[in-house]
Amino acid sequence: MRYEDAAWREKQRIRLDVNNVFGTHGLTPAELEAEAPRAAAAIAAVQERRADLGWPLLPDQDVTPFEQFAAAHRDRIDTFVVLGIGGSALGNIAVQTAINGPFYNLLPREQRGWPRLLVLDNSDPELNAGALRMLDLRRTMFNVISKSGTTAETMASFLYFRQALVEAVGEDRLGDHIVLTTDPNSGFLRQIGQREGWTMFDLPPKVGGRFSVLTSVGLLSAAMTGVNIRELLAGAAYGRELAANPDPLRNPAALGALINYLCFRKGKPIVVMMPYANRLRDVADWFAQLWAESLGKAVDRQGKPARVGQTPVKALGATDQHSQVQLYMEGPYDKLINFIAVEQYAETAPIPTAYADLEGVSYLGGHTMAELIQAEQQATAIALSEAGQPNITHIFPEINAFTLGQFFMLMEMQTAIAGELYDINAFDQPGVEAGKINTYALLGRRGFEERRAAIAARAQALDSRWVV
Amino acid sequence: MRYEDAAWREKQRIRLDVNNVFGTHGLTPAELEAEAPRAAAAIAAVQERRADLGWPLLPDQDVTPFEQFAAAHRDRIDTFVVLGIGGSALGNIAVQTAINGPFYNLLPREQRGWPRLLVLDNSDPELNAGALRMLDLRRTMFNVISKSGTTAETMASFLYFRQALVEAVGEDRLGDHIVLTTDPNSGFLRQIGQREGWTMFDLPPKVGGRFSVLTSVGLLSAAMTGVNIRELLAGAAYGRELAANPDPLRNPAALGALINYLCFRKGKPIVVMMPYANRLRDVADWFAQLWAESLGKAVDRQGKPARVGQTPVKALGATDQHSQVQLYMEGPYDKLINFIAVEQYAETAPIPTAYADLEGVSYLGGHTMAELIQAEQQATAIALSEAGQPNITHIFPEINAFTLGQFFMLMEMQTAIAGELYDINAFDQPGVEAGKINTYALLGRRGFEERRAAIAARAQALDSRWVV
Repeated sequence: MRYEDAAWREKQRIRLDVNNVFGTHGLTPAELEAEAPRAAAAIAAVQERRADLGWPLLPDQDVTPFEQFAAAHRDRIDTFVVLGIGGSALGNIAVQTAINGPFYNLLPREQRGWPRLLVLDNSDPELNAGALRMLDLRRTMFNVISKSGTTAETMASFLYFRQALVEAVGEDRLGDHIVLTTDPNSGFLRQIGQREGWTMFDLPPKVGGRFSVLTSVGLLSAAMTGVNIRELLAGAAYGRELAANPDPLRNPAALGALINYLCFRKGKPIVVMMPYANRLRDVADWFAQLWAESLGKAVDRQGKPARVGQTPVKALGATDQHSQVQLYMEGPYDKLINFIAVEQYAETAPIPTAYADLEGVSYLGGHTMAELIQAEQQATAIALSEAGQPNITHIFPEINAFTLGQFFMLMEMQTAIAGELYDINAFDQPGVEAGKINTYALLGRRGFEERRAAIAARAQALDSRWVV
Repeated sequence: MRYEDAAWREKQRIRLDVNNVFGTHGLTPAELEAEAPRAAAAIAAVQERRADLGWPLLPDQDVTPFEQFAAAHRDRIDTFVVLGIGGSALGNIAVQTAINGPFYNLLPREQRGWPRLLVLDNSDPELNAGALRMLDLRRTMFNVISKSGTTAETMASFLYFRQALVEAVGEDRLGDHIVLTTDPNSGFLRQIGQREGWTMFDLPPKVGGRFSVLTSVGLLSAAMTGVNIRELLAGAAYGRELAANPDPLRNPAALGALINYLCFRKGKPIVVMMPYANRLRDVADWFAQLWAESLGKAVDRQGKPARVGQTPVKALGATDQHSQVQLYMEGPYDKLINFIAVEQYAETAPIPTAYADLEGVSYLGGHTMAELIQAEQQATAIALSEAGQPNITHIFPEINAFTLGQFFMLMEMQTAIAGELYDINAFDQPGVEAGKINTYALLGRRGFEERRAAIAARAQALDSRWVV
């Protein structure tokens, strides 16, 4: 395997270029150096908690069960459907797009070699009904992912497709079309799986949803679509090494955490993640959950008011140069822009020469699209830097399973280190409870009658004048 | 046609509920009332400029040419490919997803009835090469969209696919596979079309890219995929009426503009657009360009420093409740959240009852997914409001061409009115020039030698210590 070769691994190292963070509205090297001791302590704190956190150990797991499952079911299945939401969907989608590209599902089966992947991550009725109309259920497998089995969106989709399967294949064949990913010991989904005798994959109890892409959550659908999950984990192990460097100014995860933290403290509440590759578009979406849910917190670890959290913005280069870059250039100095640059695309796509007399077109001929998009990334980074808008660039040597796994781990480590700098708990999400309780109340779930009455009273008090 | 019935139109009116904008960290009714005279003046100013702006007149155009073109080519074409970027892509994608749904391209031809739609809006080499590998060029038509014919990404893709077409169908048959949308009088693309004798659709010169969804830019691909473009424009005409109401507190476009403006002035630089429907996901992306590029400006109309512009964030409900809502609840009070609620989905998707003894699952049975997602939207709005995070809700009676066209026009009017409130030019984008010039320089285009040298000197000065 190529990832067993140290020289190859070193060639696939993701680098972080922060030169453009320095300037009038950005940071100074002195500021970074002044905070370096705190960042060093944060690295040490995260390293110490590795076993406790769980996700840092995921690169060491045995992935044979996923590979065996995929090999066993590959030929009988045309579409593998993930029913999951948030951390049980974003990583799956990110892996899929990054490794198999945006057209995978549109390719004919013989070109794909593996089943299509659909991730149904919403309780939108039209999404679920539309998928049902399209699917041949006899050739479909559903992977239901929920740690607790109480995730309303996922369980609603599960009940919906379960009933359709009963009609299409019969109740006694459900086990051929449903596989569960859930807590190994407790929860409703575990109970259901035991009762039905379905195949189940364990979700490590310590690992929270947004850190779970390298668990059974992400690995099963990756294996089912032909992704090299061993290389993915090898990349994650390599990223873990980089993120363990005790010198925060030589450690990309720590340096990224420190820069984001200082930018937030200096009045920049927005962080843009802008990869220059369609294949990495959904990685930005995965990052947005990781960063927002981990660091958006009302109180610090002592329970004192904090109200911190950068708002992540997903963008795509070069596309969003024609949408968002006007704002990034001329708008408030309230952002840190994270680019992802790619040094070598899998294809170059040469631009042929034509219309040689039309200079506004002909200058493109002879170049490749790879050169064009790389020039655009550099051009935009320079323009922003010269406009006083700080930015940093994550440089991917290539997009492959190794660099993807590496980036996952680097960003997870960056998030944990940033949590230390903010002194908040980066691993809970207490803020989503209120909305869940309101939903239960509105749906008439038992035990939520009081809240239901409060919501009704609230609705009474609304002023129709303010509905226009 | 149903949209000719006034009662039906009234039933399809999009409402804006702003009750949840009031509260500790939001606005007060008094603040809105105090600024109402300025907002009224802004409405009047936009109304006065209707002809000058161009896009307010688009609902009145004759769409017969688009329908005729679509009818003529529908059967010989399997895939209609848009080559455009920014304003020449985002509206096309938004219409497609909203009307035809997220699975349209995956359906068999006989179910679709119309060609697939691909929008290639990037100079990513893998995106373009991947599409080329997948397409049967003999059954493909390319719609090249660029006002000037100098858009580098679009022209590169055009040259790339033009050459492939020469090889696949021959140079003398290119006209059967290429249709241009460009300026009626000038520009490289117009010159090319004239030279080649290809079909061309005119882009109204006054209408800027981000306001062009209802021009030939958006209408041709919509017609080619079976969208009812007459109903789309009827909806836009209806939205134009609503936005002409001189009372800003009864005019949803003006009220939306005023609330966003005041929130920005009160320290909320972020605006979230969060539809609760997968079909409206790409409408949020369309809005993000409109809002960011129009209002992100360094100077006001007198040339004085302004540095304004909210950063739009695209989210999707209920999905992003499991990704972003933790931050919206507990993070800084720096956001205004815009929900889009849907009163009636095209399908309800009933949730069957099963596992009656497992209360954490069984409470869902008997409800529909439509009820679930609607409860989630309300639950989240209430939770945010109670947490002091202001939010407003655009209420779509249904998702159809009429409400979509209506929303496009309402948001365009809201943007123009907000431009008046900020006293900035909402219709230019001077900030993107610097990046374009850098790209030309990096690609070695003639006339940019000096800039190229400056960039090279800059690269020399970078410190490798800050690449980690």
